[in-house]
Amino acid sequence: MEPGFADAQVTIVGLGLMGGSLAAALTSRRACRRVVGVARRPLTLRTALDLRLIHEGTTDLQEGVRQADLVILATPVRDILAKLEIIGPMLKPGSIVLDVGSTKKAICEAMAALPEHVQPVGGHPMCGKESSGLTMAEPDLYQDKVFVLTPLPRTQPAALRMVQSMVEAVGARALLLDPERHDRLVAAISHLPYMLAVSLVNAAESLADGDDLMWQLAASGFRDTSRVAAGDIRMMTDILMTNRPAILDALHEAKMQLSRLADRLERNDLEGLTEAMQAARNKRSEMF
Amino acid sequence: MEPGFADAQVTIVGLGLMGGSLAAALTSRRACRRVVGVARRPLTLRTALDLRLIHEGTTDLQEGVRQADLVILATPVRDILAKLEIIGPMLKPGSIVLDVGSTKKAICEAMAALPEHVQPVGGHPMCGKESSGLTMAEPDLYQDKVFVLTPLPRTQPAALRMVQSMVEAVGARALLLDPERHDRLVAAISHLPYMLAVSLVNAAESLADGDDLMWQLAASGFRDTSRVAAGDIRMMTDILMTNRPAILDALHEAKMQLSRLADRLERNDLEGLTEAMQAARNKRSEMF
Repeated sequence: MEPGFADAQVTIVGLGLMGGSLAAALTSRRACRRVVGVARRPLTLRTALDLRLIHEGTTDLQEGVRQADLVILATPVRDILAKLEIIGPMLKPGSIVLDVGSTKKAICEAMAALPEHVQPVGGHPMCGKESSGLTMAEPDLYQDKVFVLTPLPRTQPAALRMVQSMVEAVGARALLLDPERHDRLVAAISHLPYMLAVSLVNAAESLADGDDLMWQLAASGFRDTSRVAAGDIRMMTDILMTNRPAILDALHEAKMQLSRLADRLERNDLEGLTEAMQAARNKRSEMF
Repeated sequence: MEPGFADAQVTIVGLGLMGGSLAAALTSRRACRRVVGVARRPLTLRTALDLRLIHEGTTDLQEGVRQADLVILATPVRDILAKLEIIGPMLKPGSIVLDVGSTKKAICEAMAALPEHVQPVGGHPMCGKESSGLTMAEPDLYQDKVFVLTPLPRTQPAALRMVQSMVEAVGARALLLDPERHDRLVAAISHLPYMLAVSLVNAAESLADGDDLMWQLAASGFRDTSRVAAGDIRMMTDILMTNRPAILDALHEAKMQLSRLADRLERNDLEGLTEAMQAARNKRSEMF
């Protein structure tokens, strides 16, 4: 019988919103034997220990991961890429490496170069908040959310099952995808909304042209449409840098849609406008 | 002494989300002597009476407004324009006509043609929901919200004071603006978010290219950024038709911002991207 997730030591590298919430979910549900946290700053570890999110903490990556059955990399994408280059020799045979980075193609390519004795699985939970950091962590962040898994061709079924157990333990729903398809889909459903929110805030600022009274007129519509523009810059730049072609396609498509609306408005084409508005409304209502 | 708002009969024409919520606020707070509702459908009046939102209801515009001290037009913009053409002769001397339409220039121009014995005031409360209709009405919709007022040059101070009393009675904060400035500012802060949300949903649908799995990946970011696309189509088409030049300017600016982001991403200009992202993030954080 293979060892189960309940017996596992899980080491979470990076105790921000995502890593901290994962630690909180695992610890509060007593889902596994031991949760170890790795962070750059001793203060972060101190806070995580005080909040009982982790059983043990260290600033030393090697020390944190060498006994781990499952290592979860929960830092921005380009930091995950850097850690994947050095982590292999630190890991015990059979240990699993999962990440929760927002893009998957670059990470899975880096995972393919891990030593043979390690089992890699890419991951991306479809949840988050515009506020980042450990203090925003909550044990229910993953509850009922989709948790994308992108196993590699070399990933053994037992390793994937272990990761799926972890996903279920934090209340999420595993969804298997290949990395390229994942990156293309999230470019449209996640990265494009961010770029539109940034464009909205900057366009409004430019259109206000110094008339600060405008911001007093902002109601819930502006607040919600612009919310993701308040997101973590480092996380977002890493996403942009590792998913460029798909995001460029999405930006191109959004500009086409905007141009089409502008053309129809310019021509007073009420029928054409209504058609576009109705299509969006129907799709949106179907979803939420 | 001029008669106060507490002695007034208020007639609300149109019992949707905005009119129904206004009626609910006035009635539940006993802010004025009497609230009369005018609606096209008897069922709407029946519901409003059952919910005690109005004291009296009628489907007959003339009957509803002839005794009113304050008439509030709460229908889509182009319907307000149509009613302003016919309502003048129905009103008693000194009665005030306020509207809650989303654009102000066209409405204030139509108000200027009202007979001399009527006191016109344009209005636009900065609140709403993506769900429309009387069943979504709530007495606190206006609480702590900005309520723009655009009096005409001919509007007498006493009439404006009466309207300001109504605004305060429903918990809102009056903000005086001229109609053109209002329309320019809301194009950026309210109409542009709608156009971006419509473009986002339609762009995502196009980019999915039949891969319906994409919608399973939609998280809170997509939900919030697209929320206003679920808004009322009739209300939005009326807005588009009566604020074309300002909305076209806003669309043009948003396209420029998107192009700039795409150019910087294309060129791998991380510094330029970060600058745009940071500007949006700072502005957004300052606001909310």
